Amino acid sequence: MSVIAIDEVRTWAAEAGHVARSYFNRVAPERKADRSPVTQADREIEIMLRERIAARYPDHDIIGEEQGGISTDHEFVWCLDPIDGTAAFIAGLPTWGVSIGILRYGQPYLGVIFLPLIEDCYWAYAAGQAFRNDEPIHVSTVERIDSQDWMAVSSYAHRQFKLDFPGKIRSLSSVAADCCYVARGSAVGAMIGRANLWDLAAGLSLLQAAGAVTIGLSGAPLEVPPLVTQSKLSEPIIIGPPHLIPKLRSYISRR
Amino acid sequence: MSVIAIDEVRTWAAEAGHVARSYFNRVAPERKADRSPVTQADREIEIMLRERIAARYPDHDIIGEEQGGISTDHEFVWCLDPIDGTAAFIAGLPTWGVSIGILRYGQPYLGVIFLPLIEDCYWAYAAGQAFRNDEPIHVSTVERIDSQDWMAVSSYAHRQFKLDFPGKIRSLSSVAADCCYVARGSAVGAMIGRANLWDLAAGLSLLQAAGAVTIGLSGAPLEVPPLVTQSKLSEPIIIGPPHLIPKLRSYISRR
Repeated sequence: MSVIAIDEVRTWAAEAGHVARSYFNRVAPERKADRSPVTQADREIEIMLRERIAARYPDHDIIGEEQGGISTDHEFVWCLDPIDGTAAFIAGLPTWGVSIGILRYGQPYLGVIFLPLIEDCYWAYAAGQAFRNDEPIHVSTVERIDSQDWMAVSSYAHRQFKLDFPGKIRSLSSVAADCCYVARGSAVGAMIGRANLWDLAAGLSLLQAAGAVTIGLSGAPLEVPPLVTQSKLSEPIIIGPPHLIPKLRSYISRR
Repeated sequence: MSVIAIDEVRTWAAEAGHVARSYFNRVAPERKADRSPVTQADREIEIMLRERIAARYPDHDIIGEEQGGISTDHEFVWCLDPIDGTAAFIAGLPTWGVSIGILRYGQPYLGVIFLPLIEDCYWAYAAGQAFRNDEPIHVSTVERIDSQDWMAVSSYAHRQFKLDFPGKIRSLSSVAADCCYVARGSAVGAMIGRANLWDLAAGLSLLQAAGAVTIGLSGAPLEVPPLVTQSKLSEPIIIGPPHLIPKLRSYISRR
């Protein structure tokens, strides 16, 4: 039996998502100290999730986008992004969601991502099977990438990279959503440029369970434990099925 | 009083959207002769809309993505895209919608675009005011484009163009949605690469009513009447507020 009941985490993510949905197109954006956008909805949802987690798992650590937090070497660290894709949320775009990831001893353990407008919940124990709602999902099995395939990139990618991908390129503006669409095999892969632990933690469990790998653009493996303290990615990462990763990397060059 | 009751067209678009929503993530993609994707939902919705229009306006022409049609010099031509963004629909992405545009004497007259997952209806008489649901909308009023502003481009744009836009670039994969986000001032502009009359007809009315202009990448004005017979754009178009158009064009160059 698992230590953490994922069904309960799914319920929390859906509740949080419905709160976010109630604020959608009805809330004024503000700026944080780093100029990134935030809203009342982000803050309220993080408080709500922290209360639920602390009540049920009082000896777990919690790190969240809005209130920060530190890991005190507890076995479990919850990583919360109340609204991953806040800029999309503010723009009235639909690709944003609630991301709840758990690390165990510094490694991906469990991930739940709820996309409220689509009413899709993606979830997995890293060591198990990945699901979209009640359906098992896995990464793309295409052998050759053609013009109808798509990959996700950051909305800033055009400024730094030349992209020779032969299919379609889309920017969803949510790292969590990028992970979901790769995990379900809709996107053949994604390049994630800038991300913090809370953007990625849930996605990493989902991707692992769905058969994806995650590596740095340089080819170096992604080390998760340093993200707990440094928080930001040291270089862009590529996610996708193992057999497509070399191809995906070959399409991307610095401008 | 207007010749065509826009409230009724909004009702039809919402009904069609709810049919599409019921097929979302539950329908197998097929390929048309030109290799573009289609589903049972596209065909069923076009038939449904054609029946409603023919019953109410028997002397109007109808051109639709799935069944084609020709203009017989009738005063009014309805231009239907039952699901604009079919590829996104098939990919499980949320930015797709029902687009119903009407030309009068070959010029934009009325447009209704319904985005079912967001439950947003964008609508306008070209000569009037543009709305998102019950709120008046207008194009962006920013003076200077900064790193937080965004523009929409086609998902193939990276293959043909070098984009020096200083903000974020997103591909929604729906020409109709591109028009909506420019019309409401969320996106500062968009470049639309390939489009047919049915993708654009509703958007052109919405954009005109919201204060946007539409010009070719070369700077040539967009002529709508030839689209009725030739159907496809002869070159990419840029849409946005008049004061930002020269800047937007300056960011785009051929690769």
